[in-house]
Amino acid sequence: MALVVMKFGGSSVADSDKIKHVASRIVAKKKAGNKVVAVVSAPGDMTDDLLTMANKITSDPPVREMDMLLATGEMVSISLLAMAIDAVGAKVISMTGPQAGITADADHTRARIKKINQKKVKDQLDKNNIVIVAGFQALNPNGDITTLGRGGSDLTAVALAAALEADSCEIYSDVEGVYAADPRIIKDAKKIDYVSYDEMLEMAGSGAQVLQSRSVEVAKKFGVEIHSRSTFSENQGTIITSEEKIRRKKMEALLVSGIAFDRNQVKFTIIDLPDLPGVAAKIFGGLAKIGVNVDMIVQSAAVDKKNDISFTISRQDMKKTQMELDKTVSEFDGASVICDEHIAKISIIGIGMKSNPGVAAQMFEILSKKGINIEMISTSEIKISCIIDEVDVIKAVDELHKDFGLSKKKQENLM
Amino acid sequence: MALVVMKFGGSSVADSDKIKHVASRIVAKKKAGNKVVAVVSAPGDMTDDLLTMANKITSDPPVREMDMLLATGEMVSISLLAMAIDAVGAKVISMTGPQAGITADADHTRARIKKINQKKVKDQLDKNNIVIVAGFQALNPNGDITTLGRGGSDLTAVALAAALEADSCEIYSDVEGVYAADPRIIKDAKKIDYVSYDEMLEMAGSGAQVLQSRSVEVAKKFGVEIHSRSTFSENQGTIITSEEKIRRKKMEALLVSGIAFDRNQVKFTIIDLPDLPGVAAKIFGGLAKIGVNVDMIVQSAAVDKKNDISFTISRQDMKKTQMELDKTVSEFDGASVICDEHIAKISIIGIGMKSNPGVAAQMFEILSKKGINIEMISTSEIKISCIIDEVDVIKAVDELHKDFGLSKKKQENLM
Repeated sequence: MALVVMKFGGSSVADSDKIKHVASRIVAKKKAGNKVVAVVSAPGDMTDDLLTMANKITSDPPVREMDMLLATGEMVSISLLAMAIDAVGAKVISMTGPQAGITADADHTRARIKKINQKKVKDQLDKNNIVIVAGFQALNPNGDITTLGRGGSDLTAVALAAALEADSCEIYSDVEGVYAADPRIIKDAKKIDYVSYDEMLEMAGSGAQVLQSRSVEVAKKFGVEIHSRSTFSENQGTIITSEEKIRRKKMEALLVSGIAFDRNQVKFTIIDLPDLPGVAAKIFGGLAKIGVNVDMIVQSAAVDKKNDISFTISRQDMKKTQMELDKTVSEFDGASVICDEHIAKISIIGIGMKSNPGVAAQMFEILSKKGINIEMISTSEIKISCIIDEVDVIKAVDELHKDFGLSKKKQENLM
Repeated sequence: MALVVMKFGGSSVADSDKIKHVASRIVAKKKAGNKVVAVVSAPGDMTDDLLTMANKITSDPPVREMDMLLATGEMVSISLLAMAIDAVGAKVISMTGPQAGITADADHTRARIKKINQKKVKDQLDKNNIVIVAGFQALNPNGDITTLGRGGSDLTAVALAAALEADSCEIYSDVEGVYAADPRIIKDAKKIDYVSYDEMLEMAGSGAQVLQSRSVEVAKKFGVEIHSRSTFSENQGTIITSEEKIRRKKMEALLVSGIAFDRNQVKFTIIDLPDLPGVAAKIFGGLAKIGVNVDMIVQSAAVDKKNDISFTISRQDMKKTQMELDKTVSEFDGASVICDEHIAKISIIGIGMKSNPGVAAQMFEILSKKGINIEMISTSEIKISCIIDEVDVIKAVDELHKDFGLSKKKQENLM
């Protein structure tokens, strides 16, 4: 008998009809001869509603009390879902994170799972129960309820699948799986059948919003195969698994699996910096101190003992970055700061790149053919990112998508 | 340093402004040099909202899951209240019922408290924290969350006060305390300064809605003095304590402390029953079997070997009682059943009655003077109840209230 962990997000349990639908999917899985553990998030907008309530009380709530408040959202889902399953005659029990034996560190609102006492859930499975577990929450060493940060229910599902040595971990949402490009932008974007953990992590870091990154890291660490699929269809979704498995299944990896973009960045350029040791350290050390996360950095070759440095940061950090740079750069005679808000980052991701050195050149050529100027470039083993003008981003995604053979039509031709 | 348990009902924490007000009262109590434990109910209508959500899923939810759902209401109150207290700079921690060491039996939705491990709350008080405890909930022997039934937060407060050997237990609500008669009906009804546990229990049983009966029973058992008072004023409310303490404080008990009435009863009369042993047992045994709770019973003296029996029951049980009686009474030749829906029960309650045998006669005289017919009478040591015509109930309460000296004006004259 296989053990399946199923995870349903907040939009899948937003009202009583949706809860009943999710119940029917869970019961069908059970009736097909599986042991079933289902992890659920808080219904619909409930987490946001609770945050609003807290903000009406104080702008600076203690994190322990915030976690006490937020944990109620998942308790509402698990109890209502258990009622819906019981109503169709299946044996079921709901468990909070602490009741399911999930313990985490004391870092409230973004705790990391430390250990899962899998006996708690196993005992209930042995009693032939469907087990409904509250996502996003755990018990910390002080005996307090703690939460795992945004998207934490994905993490709960993957960690439970690892601890229980589940045969599969299915993450349900309102999309069919992972797409090669955002289907809201590229109408004929292809759903990816298989994607490696590393590709998935690069995609998440590049703005694609499918799975919480930490849950993918944990899945990779423990070899949990994730099936990302739709709550509202029976179609096969996307399997997130190891590179080895993908190579075995597909014989050859696709050159490019996905295209991601991020319009939430701004670019700073400091021109005419002295070409001396310690200058870069001083600038980026200052930014680190005020908590600014720098993404891409490019330093040009020195000309006349002068350097230019460009880098990108999140739009939300723009003001404090500007203030910090005004201070630091004033120490370097003749240097000045330029900020460009109208940029976007576009990335192609694929494990096939490792063995195909021409991919970067191909990307640059596709963009240049359409007259799209590349302002910055950064590359990793399985990802190439370019900074381009914001106005060109849709055109760029569209062209890359077509030329790397990711549209549905092309896909059919390839098979 | 005194230890005070304060309990606030749902209407006192219904929105953020009210929560901030409650926080200010708690902090004031702490600043006055007390250790403070506050027990709170779910905000406003939240419990009813949760019940509605459950009913949209199924008409017959499993009780364990119902308790999981309902327990979230108090977790919302305790965390928001703790945030409000923290925001004004006081040290505070919230605790669920299970975290506060409150354990109960496994009778979901109406569990009875078994034990309180008072160390859990004491440890937090020793750290100079204000402790906010979720009312209405406890941990059962299976490690499940369970709830204590309607009004269960009163019980939590009294049981905590007993376990912690608190110096006082203050129950806050939107009324000033316990009134000699319902102030919504009798405009000049007097707030009672002191009332004994037994009087309070008789009042609750006779329709007055101030404190949950079980909480009064527990207070009596452990000698916890309850102060019932208003969330929105600083006035002294009503002290619920032992008869001995009241006698010591007041020198002499009032003849009548309060007047209660219940319009939710119906009267059945069975006429011409044979005067034989076992007849009453057969009738009331049959009603007990179908779960009908009989309140007052009167049997007339036998005439010509025939008896009449009258009794009252809750209006909600009327139909099934009628059906059961039709069956039972058909066995007794010549007997027949009459049902009267248009009755009300009116009661006077007071520990002073014990030593004043003329109180019953005085009640009957007051009613007869106004032409109010008494259909049934039942008496206990500290209560006299009469069944009268429904149309006379307000007139009766009004007259009894005046003549037993319970209106505010009379009260002043007495002092």
